[in-house]
Amino acid sequence: MTRDDIPTPALLLDLDRFERNLRRMAAHARATGKNLRPHAKTHRCPEIARRQVSAGALGVACAKLGEAEVMARAGVRGLLITTEVVAHAAIRRLMRLVSAAPDTLVVIDNPANVADLGREASADGVTVNVLVDVDVGTRRTGIAPGEPALALARAAVAQPSLRFRGLQGYAGHCAHVMGWEARREASHAALKPLMETRELIERAGLPVEIVAGGSTGTWDIDIELPGLTELQAGSYCVMDIDYRRIGARAGAVNGDFEMALTVITTVVSVPTTERAMVDGGLKAFSTDKPFPPESVERPGVEFSFAGDEHGRLTVTDPSRAPRLGERIEFFPPHCDPTINLYDRIYAMRGDKVEAVWDIAARGRSD
Amino acid sequence: MTRDDIPTPALLLDLDRFERNLRRMAAHARATGKNLRPHAKTHRCPEIARRQVSAGALGVACAKLGEAEVMARAGVRGLLITTEVVAHAAIRRLMRLVSAAPDTLVVIDNPANVADLGREASADGVTVNVLVDVDVGTRRTGIAPGEPALALARAAVAQPSLRFRGLQGYAGHCAHVMGWEARREASHAALKPLMETRELIERAGLPVEIVAGGSTGTWDIDIELPGLTELQAGSYCVMDIDYRRIGARAGAVNGDFEMALTVITTVVSVPTTERAMVDGGLKAFSTDKPFPPESVERPGVEFSFAGDEHGRLTVTDPSRAPRLGERIEFFPPHCDPTINLYDRIYAMRGDKVEAVWDIAARGRSD
Repeated sequence: MTRDDIPTPALLLDLDRFERNLRRMAAHARATGKNLRPHAKTHRCPEIARRQVSAGALGVACAKLGEAEVMARAGVRGLLITTEVVAHAAIRRLMRLVSAAPDTLVVIDNPANVADLGREASADGVTVNVLVDVDVGTRRTGIAPGEPALALARAAVAQPSLRFRGLQGYAGHCAHVMGWEARREASHAALKPLMETRELIERAGLPVEIVAGGSTGTWDIDIELPGLTELQAGSYCVMDIDYRRIGARAGAVNGDFEMALTVITTVVSVPTTERAMVDGGLKAFSTDKPFPPESVERPGVEFSFAGDEHGRLTVTDPSRAPRLGERIEFFPPHCDPTINLYDRIYAMRGDKVEAVWDIAARGRSD
Repeated sequence: MTRDDIPTPALLLDLDRFERNLRRMAAHARATGKNLRPHAKTHRCPEIARRQVSAGALGVACAKLGEAEVMARAGVRGLLITTEVVAHAAIRRLMRLVSAAPDTLVVIDNPANVADLGREASADGVTVNVLVDVDVGTRRTGIAPGEPALALARAAVAQPSLRFRGLQGYAGHCAHVMGWEARREASHAALKPLMETRELIERAGLPVEIVAGGSTGTWDIDIELPGLTELQAGSYCVMDIDYRRIGARAGAVNGDFEMALTVITTVVSVPTTERAMVDGGLKAFSTDKPFPPESVERPGVEFSFAGDEHGRLTVTDPSRAPRLGERIEFFPPHCDPTINLYDRIYAMRGDKVEAVWDIAARGRSD
C-alpha cells in the first residue's frame, strides 16, 4: 500500500522524522540527567507509547484514566495520570488499574479526594502512588504551592494505602510563549514556587522522589532546574504548527523537532479557477487554534475551513491550480485534538505505508 | 444504569425531546407535501437514522461515502451522498455500495467525474443515481446554476449507467443567518437560481424528479418553494446553541426544536472559591463556534475551554460554587462535530439510561 491508496482524509506519520524526534528527546533526557515520561494524550496510540519506552522513557503520562486503561491493557507500564480521579466509579476503575499496573501514579489536589483514594485502596489491599498536583499558574487543576501542598502531602502520607512520591507542576500557560528567551523567563518564574515547595516538603521530612513537569515548548529550559526530575513533553514526537511557530533557542522557527504529522486530503471539486475543495474540514482537523492547516510542499493554495467535511483552497498561484482528484497534505495546527479525530494513523516510510497503528485510546477522555 | 453512573465526559440524548423533534419535522414535511431525507452527518448513528426513517423519512443524507457505507451496512436505505466521489478507489467503493443499496444517490459537479462514474458503473453493470450539485452561493462544492448545470445533467443522461434524478442545492451560508425574516430573504434569494435551473432543465426535456436542499435554519422557509421536493435538515433532531440562537418565526430564540443533546462532565478539581474544573475540554466539545458550551439548568458558573481535557468554570454566584464530584451538563455549541468526538450516545428517559447507541460512522469522513 502506498500513499496514493489511502482513503482520505487520513492521518499520516512520517516515520523517519518521528524516529529522529524520539531519539533526540531521549538523548536530551539522558544527557541532562532527567527522566522522560512523555505525554500520551498527544497520540493516544499504544504503539507510539511502546516506541517511546523502547527509546528510554520510564513510561507515559496520560491525561485521563480512560487513556491509562488503554495503555495498561496494551502492556505499557510507568503510567502517570495527570488529572485527578474523583468520582466513585472512576476511583473503582483506578483501583482495578493499579492492581494490574502497580507502578501507576495519579495526581491529587484535594484532601477529600485523598481520603476517598486511601479508603478504597485500603479496602482493595493495594497501594496507590500519588503526586501532589501543584498549580504553577496555569489556573487549571492543582493545589496552591507552599503550605497547602505540604499539608496535602502530609494527608497522603497519613493514608497507609497511599504512597506519596512527589509533585507535578505543569506550566501549560508557558508552553507556547513566543520566543525562547521570553519562554525561559516565564517557565522559570512559574516553576520557582514548585521548586520551593519541593524544598519545603523535604525540610518537613517527606522525601520527594519525583518532580514532573515540562512541555515540548520548554524541553531545553526546564532541565536547567536541578529540582525537576522528569519531563512530560508530549507533542515533540509529531509536532504541529502551534509548536513550530513559537521559536527555539536556535531561531524564530522551532526546528528542534520535525513536523512528522500530516493530514492527507483529496481535491473533490474544482468549481472555479480561483477555488478548489478538499475533503477535509472541521472533522479532519481540530479548530482550537486561530490559524488554519498549512499545505505541505504544495505552494499556490491557502486553506480555510468550509464546514464539517470541506476545506476551501483559495488559489494564490493560477499556474498551480489544483486538479480534480489531486491529493494534498496539510500540517495540522494542533496535534493532540487532531489525532483524537482518527481511529488509525498510517506510518509512512517515504511513500510506502509501513504499518497502520490503532489510536486505541481515541475518544477515551473518561 | 442511571445518569449518575455514566463515565464522564459523555454524550447524552434526551429521548422525550428527541422524539418530539422527529415527530415535528416529519409532520411538517407531510403537511407541506415535501419529502424528508435528514442529514445523518449530524449524528452518524444508524439507530437515529432508523428512527428518522420510521418517522417517515425517505432515507438519510450522508456527507461522505464512508458514512453512507456504515448506514448501508446497518440496513438504512434511501441514501444520498452529498459530497462528490472522485478518487478511483472511492469510486470503486461507491460501486460496491450501489450494488448493495441500489437506490443510493450521489452528487456530481464535474464532467470528468461523470465520465469516470459512468465508465465504472458500466463495467460493473450497475446503475448509479445522480443529482447535479448546484452552488447556490455557499462557495463550496457544486457547479454554477443555469447552463453549466444543464450541460452536466446532459452529460449524466448521456451515460447509459447513470440515471439523472435531479438537483441538490445546499445554501449553507443561509442556514445560520440571524433572524427569521432576514434568513427567509437570504434563503429564497440563494435558491432562486436553483429553481430557475430546474425549469431550464425541464424545458430542455429532462425530467427533474428530485430537488434537495434546506437546513434546520430554513425548515419552515424552503417549503414555500414549489420546486423543492425534499428537505435535508440534520441538526433539528438534537439541536445545538448555534441553531437555537438564530431565532425562529415565533421569536428571537429558536424553540422550533428542542435541545436534546448534552455533554455530561464531572467537577474534578475545586482549586479556589472562584474556579472549578470539569473533565471536559476541547476533546469533549467542538471548538469551531465563537461561543462556549452553556450549562444546563445550573446557574452560577460560566464555562471556558482550558485545554484538551479541562473546562474552567468561573463561579459567578458564590452560593452555587461547584462541589468536588458534582456532575454538570452542558449544551454543545455545534452538534455535528461534537457528536463526532464520541463512540456512543446515552439515550436517556429522564434519569434512566434507556439505551446506548453506537455512533458507528464516527470518524468516517473518508
